[in-house]
Amino acid sequence: MHVLVIGAAGMIGRKLVAALTGRKALAGRDIEQLTLADIVKPEAPAFSGKVDCLAIDLSVDGAAAGLVATRPDMIFHLAAIVSGEAEADFEKGYRVNLDGTRELFEAIRLESAKGRYCPKLVFTSSIAVFGEPLPAVIDDNHGLTPLTSYGTQKAIGELLLADYSRRGFFDGIGIRLPTITIRPGKPNKAASGFFSGILREPLAGMEAVLPVSEDVRHWFASPRAAVRFLVHAAELDTAPLGSRRSLTMPGLAATVGEEIEALRRVAGEKAVGLIRREPDATIMKIVGGWPQSFDPRRALALGFEAEKSFDEIITAHVEDELGGRIPQ
Amino acid sequence: MHVLVIGAAGMIGRKLVAALTGRKALAGRDIEQLTLADIVKPEAPAFSGKVDCLAIDLSVDGAAAGLVATRPDMIFHLAAIVSGEAEADFEKGYRVNLDGTRELFEAIRLESAKGRYCPKLVFTSSIAVFGEPLPAVIDDNHGLTPLTSYGTQKAIGELLLADYSRRGFFDGIGIRLPTITIRPGKPNKAASGFFSGILREPLAGMEAVLPVSEDVRHWFASPRAAVRFLVHAAELDTAPLGSRRSLTMPGLAATVGEEIEALRRVAGEKAVGLIRREPDATIMKIVGGWPQSFDPRRALALGFEAEKSFDEIITAHVEDELGGRIPQ
Repeated sequence: MHVLVIGAAGMIGRKLVAALTGRKALAGRDIEQLTLADIVKPEAPAFSGKVDCLAIDLSVDGAAAGLVATRPDMIFHLAAIVSGEAEADFEKGYRVNLDGTRELFEAIRLESAKGRYCPKLVFTSSIAVFGEPLPAVIDDNHGLTPLTSYGTQKAIGELLLADYSRRGFFDGIGIRLPTITIRPGKPNKAASGFFSGILREPLAGMEAVLPVSEDVRHWFASPRAAVRFLVHAAELDTAPLGSRRSLTMPGLAATVGEEIEALRRVAGEKAVGLIRREPDATIMKIVGGWPQSFDPRRALALGFEAEKSFDEIITAHVEDELGGRIPQ
Repeated sequence: MHVLVIGAAGMIGRKLVAALTGRKALAGRDIEQLTLADIVKPEAPAFSGKVDCLAIDLSVDGAAAGLVATRPDMIFHLAAIVSGEAEADFEKGYRVNLDGTRELFEAIRLESAKGRYCPKLVFTSSIAVFGEPLPAVIDDNHGLTPLTSYGTQKAIGELLLADYSRRGFFDGIGIRLPTITIRPGKPNKAASGFFSGILREPLAGMEAVLPVSEDVRHWFASPRAAVRFLVHAAELDTAPLGSRRSLTMPGLAATVGEEIEALRRVAGEKAVGLIRREPDATIMKIVGGWPQSFDPRRALALGFEAEKSFDEIITAHVEDELGGRIPQ
């Protein structure tokens, strides 16, 4: 099987590639070839099969067609400009998140028109597709009313994914990721960064800023869970999805206060003492428009699984990023 | 005020132009200039102000920019390939219904970036944005899960409309039209054509084919109501819409059997006798996936009004298209 990962140099992309090379198989077939693409050239993983690492801008004419010409059996499309940047740079957000996605879908359609080609395609969407009105718990039939350009671009991607799948150009599945916490490494431009920061920095013995109040409730999963979702989506029979090709992934509904209590249990009082309260009205307003909790019955029934507590999320981070030890 | 109507040569477009030239004013301002655009050159109406009639393909580079350069205060965007044609010709549907709409929105954004320009924009969407799962009555928070390429293109238009409005590039409102019945003239390529045909042809003394059973329930409004919706949308203060810029329009939920009973009351037994039952499995399957009824509270609260009975819908057709008389 030939697997193409677009967005392979990103945080989730790298973890997905590591999982794929570790598994060596997907959906019951050996992985013989990996094509890894991103706006910057992804690092080549240790892998026994063929690997191509490509620096590519999907929104440039012909780039997507080049990727698809080799007919990958499985395509993971993770590439996107994050929410903060898509909001700050309107044109770049639409070019990368909408045009890039459409170029990819069109390239597959045109390749499939040549005959005998209908790849599986896994598209990462986001809970940013949801906006006002927001019930306390959002069910699987709730409408997509994004409040950001990023959410709009993801919602349009979901609509295109459904129509191209219905037409038989590819076999698509969209997964709406919760806010991924704890993100390793440096903060990115997402307004949701503090959800990770108030755990990641104290776990590394560093100070972190909390810009919102402790009663803010949100929807979380670990990077480890995100990779599990992607692999499960790739292996899933899409027939039970019917015409609704995108699924809200399971997650953990928790408050910032509950995050902090879990940090206290796992890492102790000293770590909690590193969180500095610095209320920020702008971030509070943005976060105030975000979903708090979901009832993701369709995804649960199809076997997707997330963490059940923030203790698990923190432990996954300590194991995957800190070598299993919390620095004292 | 300068009013631009895109799609002015279509059935609704022509009726809208007639209403505008008859009213002479909109939103409390005199209409001084009309620009009428369509893929074929619209006929010039009798009008005391300036009128430009243009044959234009919005999806061609520069066409939208040319239209917007004159800075119309009010823009009605009605232009679209109908559902049957968008399904039959995938590329044409996306080019006209998606790219054409996006070119228009982009042209307005780029014009607004030059300063002091933020027109009102009325976009016609459709109940084709709704698909599975369909409750018997669809409320205003129900998600958009279209089952056709046309519905997908309209749903994407709604998402773009909301984001461009939120960004302040224009002041947009989307109205989801019910199935417009009785459509005058010849049948078009829409699968919904029979809903009009079984009334229009018998009212003209001609035979009509009914391809579905009489218990099929659907959501209707007259062409007259559609024009009223457009004018009301143009005059509406959009502040109460918040971030949700598109509204399901009110309509009449009725079965084919109720249509026929109304025909019997208005035009008599002889007219009803002209309906020939000819079940068509393909059309039955398509229509089976369509919405049956809505609870359009937001639009009703904002003063949009549709017909209350099929007798009214038939009477509007007889008055507007048949000079008030049913041929014997």
